[in-house]
Amino acid sequence: MKRVLVTGASGFIGRHALPELLTRGYEVHAVARRPLDTPKVHWHSADLLDASALAPLLAAVKPSHLLHFAWYAEPGKFWTAQENFAWLQASMRLLDSFAATGGRRVVAAGSCAEYDWGGGHCEETATALRPATTYGICKDLLRRYLDEYARVAGLSAGWGRIFHLYGPYEDESRLVASVIRALGRGGTADCTAGTQVRDFLHAADAAAAFVALLDGPVVGAVNIASGKPVSIAQLVTRIGELMGARERVRLGALPMRAGDPPVLTAAVGRLADEVGWQPGLELSAGLSQTIQWWRQQE
Amino acid sequence: MKRVLVTGASGFIGRHALPELLTRGYEVHAVARRPLDTPKVHWHSADLLDASALAPLLAAVKPSHLLHFAWYAEPGKFWTAQENFAWLQASMRLLDSFAATGGRRVVAAGSCAEYDWGGGHCEETATALRPATTYGICKDLLRRYLDEYARVAGLSAGWGRIFHLYGPYEDESRLVASVIRALGRGGTADCTAGTQVRDFLHAADAAAAFVALLDGPVVGAVNIASGKPVSIAQLVTRIGELMGARERVRLGALPMRAGDPPVLTAAVGRLADEVGWQPGLELSAGLSQTIQWWRQQE
Repeated sequence: MKRVLVTGASGFIGRHALPELLTRGYEVHAVARRPLDTPKVHWHSADLLDASALAPLLAAVKPSHLLHFAWYAEPGKFWTAQENFAWLQASMRLLDSFAATGGRRVVAAGSCAEYDWGGGHCEETATALRPATTYGICKDLLRRYLDEYARVAGLSAGWGRIFHLYGPYEDESRLVASVIRALGRGGTADCTAGTQVRDFLHAADAAAAFVALLDGPVVGAVNIASGKPVSIAQLVTRIGELMGARERVRLGALPMRAGDPPVLTAAVGRLADEVGWQPGLELSAGLSQTIQWWRQQE
Repeated sequence: MKRVLVTGASGFIGRHALPELLTRGYEVHAVARRPLDTPKVHWHSADLLDASALAPLLAAVKPSHLLHFAWYAEPGKFWTAQENFAWLQASMRLLDSFAATGGRRVVAAGSCAEYDWGGGHCEETATALRPATTYGICKDLLRRYLDEYARVAGLSAGWGRIFHLYGPYEDESRLVASVIRALGRGGTADCTAGTQVRDFLHAADAAAAFVALLDGPVVGAVNIASGKPVSIAQLVTRIGELMGARERVRLGALPMRAGDPPVLTAAVGRLADEVGWQPGLELSAGLSQTIQWWRQQE
């Protein structure tokens, strides 16, 4: 019997993980402060930052598997917020309760922000870890903690490092959502020159990759990414083309952000070869689906 | 007004820190599960692992300074014990309460076990951090956490990395205490060949170094050590000489421990030049005082 508890289950990635887990035969328990209405999923309303809520929740569910997405994710604030420390501590308490109630396999969400961005291309074992933000530092600390905790407590633990994402439900202040929204309203999408090279993955694919990682034996850090670098200019131009608004995408209208690395891409050898997972959505298909979703919100 | 809270205040180092702090003009609050009877010190009985005990304690004391020694220290067990995770979490909660009640300056106890021992000589900024034990990993995680937490929360934070210690109240299973006890009982002290080179510091000197670090502005990691390497053979031979029992110290009677590094010594430039602290006790004087103390226990 595979019984999974998903944290952050109402979030940008988490909500997509639920049907994937059902498909793979899990009894799915989802926790969020504000539960969704999702068929066949057992929802639990809890604030994971409340230490007293954890032990009863885990004792009630007794999950064999834990998929931990929950974290402070307020756009524009999460990089430097003091809330990162609270979420690190909450994650540690969650592991204690998970291990105490018989949990066996855990996968948690990490970030490309753990890596030294100086080299551009990030490989799980070869690239140095040199997080430059409070968010990246706290994720790096949780990964180091999880590795040792799992070894001592006899858990199996994987760690998915997320790169750039897009898709439905994205916060409107973020790149893909903001360009789609601007063009959808008939306005211009003011962008930088867009020479930055990045790895973009659809949030539903990210969720599927996490579920594949959880459902297998791979331990340690695995990049969750498409493995197909694209420049921001290519990305936003593609959105413009798909929306018939190519001429309203204004590259170079904004200055480059200080400290923005020219290249930030992901090695996906572990994900492809060890986890055995490939993206389901090509970029154009994923963007079309996302544009369609935004149109339905109007 | 300098008001300090000392955790682990009844411990091997902590107890020596109390008079040093009084001498420097601190109002001294000490916390332990089993308080001592020490003049002029305000004792608080609390178990720091009990999350509910922390906020009331810190709210009652409102310390400006925090000297954090408390940790799981059971000889023979602490290197690998699961308790290390609990003490890491307790230390994080302690910082939260300290910052919330107006704390300004914190110094916590780290360890030489944070370093990569491959090179032998350990320097704060030059030597790689590669802890090989659960204890070392959790101390390393707390140091990384403290650095970032202090930056974000506006605290000033120092970190003392302890090397080898000796002195009164040492656990009898540890090297110096066990040799003194064996010789004191008239038996032999069976030792390895003793070629291992180490840095030994009297626990009272370690406490004085921590207090000097706390009472100044130095931030980040500082080795707490004598800076005077000695071989185990020299050390135990000296104990034998001081006790008139040189011939009962049997070097080579025990095999070397697997994985015991040949050299593990400390750079003390930061401690001497930045903190401005020097050991008060030469090794022979410190050993004599320790032998005297053990004789008084009989």
